[in-house]
Amino acid sequence: MNATRLESDLLGELEIPQNAYYGVQTQRAINNFKISTNKLSDYPELVKGLAKVKWAAAKTNFELNILNENIYRAIADACQEILDGKWALEFPVDMIQGGAGTSVNMNANEVIANRALELLGYVKGEYQYCSPNDHVNLSQSTNDAYPTSLKVAAFEMNKKVVSRLEKLVSAFEIKATEFEHVIKMGRTQLQDAVPMTLGQEFGGFGFTLKKEIDALNTASQAFLEVNMGATAIGTGLNAVPGYAGLCAKNLGILLDESVKSAENLVEATSDTSGFVSYSGTLKKLAIKLSKICNDLRLLSSGPRTGLNEIQLPPMQPGSSIMPGKVNPVIPEVVNQVCFKVIGNDLTITMASEAAQLQLNVMEPVLAHTLMESMLWLENAMNTLTEKCVLGIKANEEHSKNQVLGSIGIVTALNPYIGYKASTKIAKEALKTGRGVYELVLEHQLLTKEKLDEILDPKHMLTPHKKEL
Amino acid sequence: MNATRLESDLLGELEIPQNAYYGVQTQRAINNFKISTNKLSDYPELVKGLAKVKWAAAKTNFELNILNENIYRAIADACQEILDGKWALEFPVDMIQGGAGTSVNMNANEVIANRALELLGYVKGEYQYCSPNDHVNLSQSTNDAYPTSLKVAAFEMNKKVVSRLEKLVSAFEIKATEFEHVIKMGRTQLQDAVPMTLGQEFGGFGFTLKKEIDALNTASQAFLEVNMGATAIGTGLNAVPGYAGLCAKNLGILLDESVKSAENLVEATSDTSGFVSYSGTLKKLAIKLSKICNDLRLLSSGPRTGLNEIQLPPMQPGSSIMPGKVNPVIPEVVNQVCFKVIGNDLTITMASEAAQLQLNVMEPVLAHTLMESMLWLENAMNTLTEKCVLGIKANEEHSKNQVLGSIGIVTALNPYIGYKASTKIAKEALKTGRGVYELVLEHQLLTKEKLDEILDPKHMLTPHKKEL
Amino acid sequence: MNATRLESDLLGELEIPQNAYYGVQTQRAINNFKISTNKLSDYPELVKGLAKVKWAAAKTNFELNILNENIYRAIADACQEILDGKWALEFPVDMIQGGAGTSVNMNANEVIANRALELLGYVKGEYQYCSPNDHVNLSQSTNDAYPTSLKVAAFEMNKKVVSRLEKLVSAFEIKATEFEHVIKMGRTQLQDAVPMTLGQEFGGFGFTLKKEIDALNTASQAFLEVNMGATAIGTGLNAVPGYAGLCAKNLGILLDESVKSAENLVEATSDTSGFVSYSGTLKKLAIKLSKICNDLRLLSSGPRTGLNEIQLPPMQPGSSIMPGKVNPVIPEVVNQVCFKVIGNDLTITMASEAAQLQLNVMEPVLAHTLMESMLWLENAMNTLTEKCVLGIKANEEHSKNQVLGSIGIVTALNPYIGYKASTKIAKEALKTGRGVYELVLEHQLLTKEKLDEILDPKHMLTPHKKEL
Amino acid sequence: MNATRLESDLLGELEIPQNAYYGVQTQRAINNFKISTNKLSDYPELVKGLAKVKWAAAKTNFELNILNENIYRAIADACQEILDGKWALEFPVDMIQGGAGTSVNMNANEVIANRALELLGYVKGEYQYCSPNDHVNLSQSTNDAYPTSLKVAAFEMNKKVVSRLEKLVSAFEIKATEFEHVIKMGRTQLQDAVPMTLGQEFGGFGFTLKKEIDALNTASQAFLEVNMGATAIGTGLNAVPGYAGLCAKNLGILLDESVKSAENLVEATSDTSGFVSYSGTLKKLAIKLSKICNDLRLLSSGPRTGLNEIQLPPMQPGSSIMPGKVNPVIPEVVNQVCFKVIGNDLTITMASEAAQLQLNVMEPVLAHTLMESMLWLENAMNTLTEKCVLGIKANEEHSKNQVLGSIGIVTALNPYIGYKASTKIAKEALKTGRGVYELVLEHQLLTKEKLDEILDPKHMLTPHKKEL
Repeated sequence: MNATRLESDLLGELEIPQNAYYGVQTQRAINNFKISTNKLSDYPELVKGLAKVKWAAAKTNFELNILNENIYRAIADACQEILDGKWALEFPVDMIQGGAGTSVNMNANEVIANRALELLGYVKGEYQYCSPNDHVNLSQSTNDAYPTSLKVAAFEMNKKVVSRLEKLVSAFEIKATEFEHVIKMGRTQLQDAVPMTLGQEFGGFGFTLKKEIDALNTASQAFLEVNMGATAIGTGLNAVPGYAGLCAKNLGILLDESVKSAENLVEATSDTSGFVSYSGTLKKLAIKLSKICNDLRLLSSGPRTGLNEIQLPPMQPGSSIMPGKVNPVIPEVVNQVCFKVIGNDLTITMASEAAQLQLNVMEPVLAHTLMESMLWLENAMNTLTEKCVLGIKANEEHSKNQVLGSIGIVTALNPYIGYKASTKIAKEALKTGRGVYELVLEHQLLTKEKLDEILDPKHMLTPHKKEL
Repeated sequence: MNATRLESDLLGELEIPQNAYYGVQTQRAINNFKISTNKLSDYPELVKGLAKVKWAAAKTNFELNILNENIYRAIADACQEILDGKWALEFPVDMIQGGAGTSVNMNANEVIANRALELLGYVKGEYQYCSPNDHVNLSQSTNDAYPTSLKVAAFEMNKKVVSRLEKLVSAFEIKATEFEHVIKMGRTQLQDAVPMTLGQEFGGFGFTLKKEIDALNTASQAFLEVNMGATAIGTGLNAVPGYAGLCAKNLGILLDESVKSAENLVEATSDTSGFVSYSGTLKKLAIKLSKICNDLRLLSSGPRTGLNEIQLPPMQPGSSIMPGKVNPVIPEVVNQVCFKVIGNDLTITMASEAAQLQLNVMEPVLAHTLMESMLWLENAMNTLTEKCVLGIKANEEHSKNQVLGSIGIVTALNPYIGYKASTKIAKEALKTGRGVYELVLEHQLLTKEKLDEILDPKHMLTPHKKEL
Repeated sequence: MNATRLESDLLGELEIPQNAYYGVQTQRAINNFKISTNKLSDYPELVKGLAKVKWAAAKTNFELNILNENIYRAIADACQEILDGKWALEFPVDMIQGGAGTSVNMNANEVIANRALELLGYVKGEYQYCSPNDHVNLSQSTNDAYPTSLKVAAFEMNKKVVSRLEKLVSAFEIKATEFEHVIKMGRTQLQDAVPMTLGQEFGGFGFTLKKEIDALNTASQAFLEVNMGATAIGTGLNAVPGYAGLCAKNLGILLDESVKSAENLVEATSDTSGFVSYSGTLKKLAIKLSKICNDLRLLSSGPRTGLNEIQLPPMQPGSSIMPGKVNPVIPEVVNQVCFKVIGNDLTITMASEAAQLQLNVMEPVLAHTLMESMLWLENAMNTLTEKCVLGIKANEEHSKNQVLGSIGIVTALNPYIGYKASTKIAKEALKTGRGVYELVLEHQLLTKEKLDEILDPKHMLTPHKKEL
Repeated sequence: MNATRLESDLLGELEIPQNAYYGVQTQRAINNFKISTNKLSDYPELVKGLAKVKWAAAKTNFELNILNENIYRAIADACQEILDGKWALEFPVDMIQGGAGTSVNMNANEVIANRALELLGYVKGEYQYCSPNDHVNLSQSTNDAYPTSLKVAAFEMNKKVVSRLEKLVSAFEIKATEFEHVIKMGRTQLQDAVPMTLGQEFGGFGFTLKKEIDALNTASQAFLEVNMGATAIGTGLNAVPGYAGLCAKNLGILLDESVKSAENLVEATSDTSGFVSYSGTLKKLAIKLSKICNDLRLLSSGPRTGLNEIQLPPMQPGSSIMPGKVNPVIPEVVNQVCFKVIGNDLTITMASEAAQLQLNVMEPVLAHTLMESMLWLENAMNTLTEKCVLGIKANEEHSKNQVLGSIGIVTALNPYIGYKASTKIAKEALKTGRGVYELVLEHQLLTKEKLDEILDPKHMLTPHKKEL
């Protein structure tokens, strides 16, 4: 039998494991919410976010003379220990919970209070000396501390997402240079169009992803605007004048960023649109990644009855029945992550829309879902970079031959013989299976010299001056 | 200046165009809701649904002795005229409206009342003889009459959707037979797998769509369970005993179907899950159609640098710049309709979830969106059948040659030489560009006779007995 | 340093932990896919599904004389051990993976083969005696074995979902009876409507959920139609005649259900619509649960400035700052689960739409997401039943007083004094703050006796005969 | 019988109505696409966008000496006429079409060519003098001209959306000032929290919407980056050097904005992320509007059994059966528009994700859906401003009394008596139905003077210095 201690709250008394740093309200949450398999402790960035927020609040309270120095120091030290990764297992509440994050906030308040008590020389539970509510949560409400902690976590996690994205962009850029001489057919609507280089194609992949780096960083700026000092509903009840601004400033010091107090704290308390924006940006990134992975799978289709323009590095046998089959497993897994991110964006949309009056009580599922999208994307981009893009090889000869035999090159003749005449050549080529080149000569539409110049694929890769 | 007549309601007096059959509440709705470009009159099936419901209600009231025969006959005749397509322009309210459909219901009540007044020898607006509320709407509320009318409309529209789907299935079945001798490579994960026939592929398209016929008809059965008699909140206040059952029966007579009164009228009043189920079934159909159209576009990709196994009938020049280009425009438009249907399913999901207490006030957007999905899908399937599937041609020779040169046929050797040995052959074929056939002989793994038998593509199209 | 053994596959050699029952292909998957935090072993029902499928396949192969009895018995025994929960940690592949489930299938093949080897007296890795591919996977492909295993898992999980739903329905029915005498105002569009009982309201909750029991069970029937014998693309290559039907039958014996072989195996191989249907049904259930939880939160709003018609059992202190506050945390957490289920349905929709040609490679994310929805809903419904619904209390006196003071009861006067006259009374009541009762008497519209009878709330709860 | 003229294209000859300015490719599109009820002509901003793009292209071609002045002037004049609203009915193609917008582009090319022909003194169809392809479409492809036209249209439409939003913000600000003295209970999780003013609440509505003005304008900047000069796939084939930059500049002159040529034209040709961003921003606005409308409906619930803190202006009778009922029809219709915008965002997401290789062929549904969202939101916000917000009235007395009787005010006592003691008071108040004020005095926790000061609601509306 495990030793327990007794704590009490509004609902009465409850036994807590003797060694637990968390207290009665965490225990109630453990009992109440058995929904998902994801606990607060599975998201260390959120635990760290809570520690930073509690530290900044305590510092502010101390500086404003409403918290004595001893207690403040103990709280700060307890927070530092959490940031150092200690007490990681003391955050066992289910990420999916009712109460708008109160259980997460109280879990942090209780662990910090109990650890501070020990640092002050007391034993766990002697809350008269350092109380989860009156000291650790002083000048705060779940409704400001919880979303602020989530913002801190998301801000830090964004750095990792961006870092993985930068590496992926760089991989595509390397390949764009490597493939800049590989001529191939461009395709629109899956039909043969006009020539391009594989370098241009991979350059496009890199470029389109690169734009999302700024987009993510811009969206993450919303996480640096916080509602500390709003307390319960944004009116700042029980916070003293000056607290909101100073607490934002102190939090900024801990983050080494400029943190801003929300201009309208009533609005900020129920508003989750910063998360919606960020999730929308992740969704946009997912749309692009999914398109690129679809393209990689198309371009590497074959080996003998597909487009076969590129080869992805083989990662594992492709089939339990078909020997020698190698599948594009890495782009495939990235596609699936993208579908999850898009579905998660809907969950976040619904959670955000469900705010009522002075609060959005659906923040826990929003928090869980947003962080899940970030983690999965981070992993997926890393996998795509390391296990796929950097190892892609071009089938140069095959691609070049396809261009030479294509009908689409007829487009280059428009400025010389007009759309109507070009159409006739194309039609005849399609019908007879013959080449555009020979047909133009046969019909004496252009001299061989002129035709050689016009149909040189290299001339089709960029705009150039027509000499009429 | 147009002549007007004066009508009044709870809010006061309002001028109505003299010739209008609609009255004051319709006029208020016209003034209040200027949102979309879609009017009630754009959905004739819904107008007809209203007429049938009002007719059935009047008949029931008459049979239960709470409406006199003269008025009943006049209401019934007015409804018949609406069913005949008369007064089509008298339903000008915006489909997107607040009030849970009250404006649609009152639009119908007013048109029917005014036309009935004329048939009774009175002039429009003399509501003391036949009132939109006291007579046409007798024993009803918007909260039963509106969703029931929508169900009647959706039930009829489903017949058209199913009819178009049946024709599409039939088109695929015709092609399956036509292509049953066309051997081609099957592909999994876009990589060459093992042989099959084009007939099997098209047969799969037909078969998977065929399953949705039953699914749609099953889902549409929910439309035959109605909440007439529920009145405002399902308690049946102001309806007399027996009304609910008799009204369902009378509506059934008009529809020539067995219509059932909902078992729990309180539940039925706020529940829109029948629409959610049906929209979900449309979404499932859209998923399948989109996949099939993606496949048709892939299989017809080329003509020279794609898979090029089939040719879709050319419908229009494909490009304003590339002469001779023909694009798969019909599958493309169907894909887009599918995306709209999937987006619409989300709108319907949110509308359904937003029910509160005794009613779902979001039914108008649900109604509009559901009918939009049905109409677009109906048109899209018709277009796909007539302008694409029936005209598809197979590139038989090309497909057969691809099979003969493929590596995937090595799979058939597993039962004879084992997965490991087959893997080695496949690996060597891929590396050297050589054929499976010659490599097996070279390594003396099987006799030529045995190999000829095993690698005959026709033997790979179905299970067959191995002779070991 | 941990001991290892060496295994090889198409890509070469790889070291495997000596004690691992899984082999080279599992190891490659571990290395390739580091995406989510969810492993195959976190979904024991899927592991069991794999074991049943492999067992059924082996039995079929034995009965068809293509697998010898010793190996069959060893495979069967290994599968039984897995069903008994042994080897639970031997399934470490990430649920989110490329390759259409090949890694999951091979994980199962390898664990079963190695355990069978031990049972046969060999050591792990001596695959010449029992090979993951040639024996355990005999007559199978990932493309039939993986989706079939998922179907088996989903079928079993559905039983739990339904069981939780049944208990929730029962809880609402108990409350419906308990509250059948509690009269309250019904509301439409959040505005006072007409009277009803709290029992009717809770009866509606129970009834609407009850309909989903059948819906889930019906949708889960699709899981009993399997594509075993389809092998790679549905043509049954390398399966012998009769295998498909017999394997379905043998699987049915293991499940104690009638399992059916899909009519068209080509179609069945790329089709995931059975999962889409089921997820759509879960979504429909989520829509209803969310609406009900919204209502429970509305009805219990207050205690002093809300509707306050019911009290939910207090589960935990509601606020870190507001003493005495108790929040509806249980309905709140259920709402959030519903949002996740709805977002998950979108992920499943996208995964299903992304099937290409002969396969749907996106099944792993579909599998993970579907099982997540099922588990969360199962837990959420259990929580709602046990920690909320069963403990709800009615504020009977308050609710009754609200009815007596309401204007909405004027509706009951329509059949006696007409809609127009009733409107005037309502308007005056609203303007003056006075009661409907006194105003009707003051205007001498009805006798006191008649009025008492009409306005008795009990008479408003069901249809009843008017005596005119 | 209507007179016709004969035109021809790749597929052969076709009869065109003699008077039509459109030509053979438009006619093929009319025949091919009968899907929705929305035609190009229903979106005049898109028609104008096409005219501006064609004008800018012609001007650029003229300035680069590849188009002669006469033809350029005629094209420019024809474009001006279209901008003036002439030829509005000459754009009959269905908005939902295959071909990536080729039919829209060719519709514009043909109308402009034929009108230019007339202005040059020729008759319609004499394309040798001014051809839809060789002159009007010179240096262009559908793949640059169509998305650029859509961007121009969306940029102009955004101005209207923003203008309506600004008026709505202003309406909320007016009300915030009007209600700044109305004290009411704030609510979190629908439970009584602490006091605030109605002015703070409405100020929050205005403030949160105001942030979306910048968001929309920022997102619309993406519409000023265009891919003119990309031609078919971004390589600029058939465009002369310098064309891309000059065309962007010329388009900028027409728009009176700085228009930029996309940095990477290959990427720009298949990328639709600018539309995804903008739709995401509309979705965010919709989320906020939906939340606000939910709040307006909650706050005005009643009149006697709801929160009843505000009165919305009555717009129409609320019920066909319940006399005197007035419903919040305007917020309700806005909620529904929001659901449509959210569903539309999903359609746009799927359309964007479906880009393949060098193009996104799904742009037509994206175009239609985006413009639908913009138009509906524009109308919905206008309706909300004019027909609801500006006429809202506060129930000041009722709201104040609710504050005085609430338990939530106990929160203000925390800093004086601690969370634990406050909890006891709250608990007793809830149990006994008594007031916080009297209980504190009874328990002699504070003096009457101190208590009066602390519990003065005015002191609870902002942070203020505690004197301990």
